Amino acid sequence: MTITITAFECSPDGGKGLARDTRVRWALEEAGQPYEVRLVSPQAMKAPAHLRLHPFGQIPTYEEGTLALFETGAIVFHIAERHTGLLPTDPDARARAITWMFAALSTVEPPILELSNAKFAEGDKPWSAERVPLVADRIRQRLGQLSVRLGDAEWLDGAFSVGDLIMVSVLLRTRPSGILGEFPNLAAYVARGEARPAYQRAFAAQLAVNTAARQAS
Amino acid sequence: MTITITAFECSPDGGKGLARDTRVRWALEEAGQPYEVRLVSPQAMKAPAHLRLHPFGQIPTYEEGTLALFETGAIVFHIAERHTGLLPTDPDARARAITWMFAALSTVEPPILELSNAKFAEGDKPWSAERVPLVADRIRQRLGQLSVRLGDAEWLDGAFSVGDLIMVSVLLRTRPSGILGEFPNLAAYVARGEARPAYQRAFAAQLAVNTAARQAS
Repeated sequence: MTITITAFECSPDGGKGLARDTRVRWALEEAGQPYEVRLVSPQAMKAPAHLRLHPFGQIPTYEEGTLALFETGAIVFHIAERHTGLLPTDPDARARAITWMFAALSTVEPPILELSNAKFAEGDKPWSAERVPLVADRIRQRLGQLSVRLGDAEWLDGAFSVGDLIMVSVLLRTRPSGILGEFPNLAAYVARGEARPAYQRAFAAQLAVNTAARQAS
Repeated sequence: MTITITAFECSPDGGKGLARDTRVRWALEEAGQPYEVRLVSPQAMKAPAHLRLHPFGQIPTYEEGTLALFETGAIVFHIAERHTGLLPTDPDARARAITWMFAALSTVEPPILELSNAKFAEGDKPWSAERVPLVADRIRQRLGQLSVRLGDAEWLDGAFSVGDLIMVSVLLRTRPSGILGEFPNLAAYVARGEARPAYQRAFAAQLAVNTAARQAS
């Protein structure tokens, strides 16, 4: 059955790979699954046809036969469950890999989203200059704790898993601010993720969409 | 094998059920699993023994034989996978229930956490009065979209699932601000969650801990 995902017609990051379809593309590449992409415009994302697929009007979505899913974490986990390579077979190790996926989305990413809001949604507010460093410190607190746990390990818990795929994707968003670079072992961990052939293919695919969009506009 | 979770010795909410151990207690009650609780003080949460269990120094954690997990979503999902009653058996319905769990944690909860930070971590800042309503509007946007999707259904997708357990728990945190009450179908949905006997038992158990803590102090 054909897998179809949605992605931005033109990503707000211009193709840096930070839009969430990259996470799904990466999981599909790790799993060796071909997929099709339906690009959606900002207008189409708020239209009834897309809201039926994604009640919060975002990308990515995932369609395969009669199954329609939204929410990046759920899609990536679905791919990890159905194919080999992203989840350990040992039950305890599998539960721990899932734990890292939730930790990335529920504990590490929220302050990163908050910094995004501080810079973009509130960048013109009088408090912006004083507040942005406060929010950045919340990210540093989490990354400091994560850096201690990772130590000099290659991945978070044994072999590369869906937990690393999501954590690397979340941490990537802290590179433009310079915060990732303050934690050399995390920066090296992210670089190991980016060096994986599956990530390279995912990144190239999203970049091609965004390069074409820029040339057309 | 005995299941042991951790909880605050004395919850910041004084027993309103908003601390995350309540979510795990609720899942264990739905699954009919007995459990023990180890209470941790603020000091103990930052000590090496607890950080080995939870790298971010939070509660809850989950121990069962050789397995040790942290992160509420992962723990609740682990319970849902191992026992009946929280996940549908049909594969597509199961994937959709998991989607709602991720949606609650990754899409609905982040602006709620942001409002908490705005009120508590930044309540003394000069921008607080002007900024809190902006953040509250981000919650309203998500709750408005969720309200449309829920409509007059009893639960988010068919029978009660782990997706509802996490979504109800997340929405509960918007009641003190009055925002939940602006969406009558969501308020009724949350009330249906709270009316479940398993929730009642979980709530009573965490309240007993916090009542005892207040009396001892």
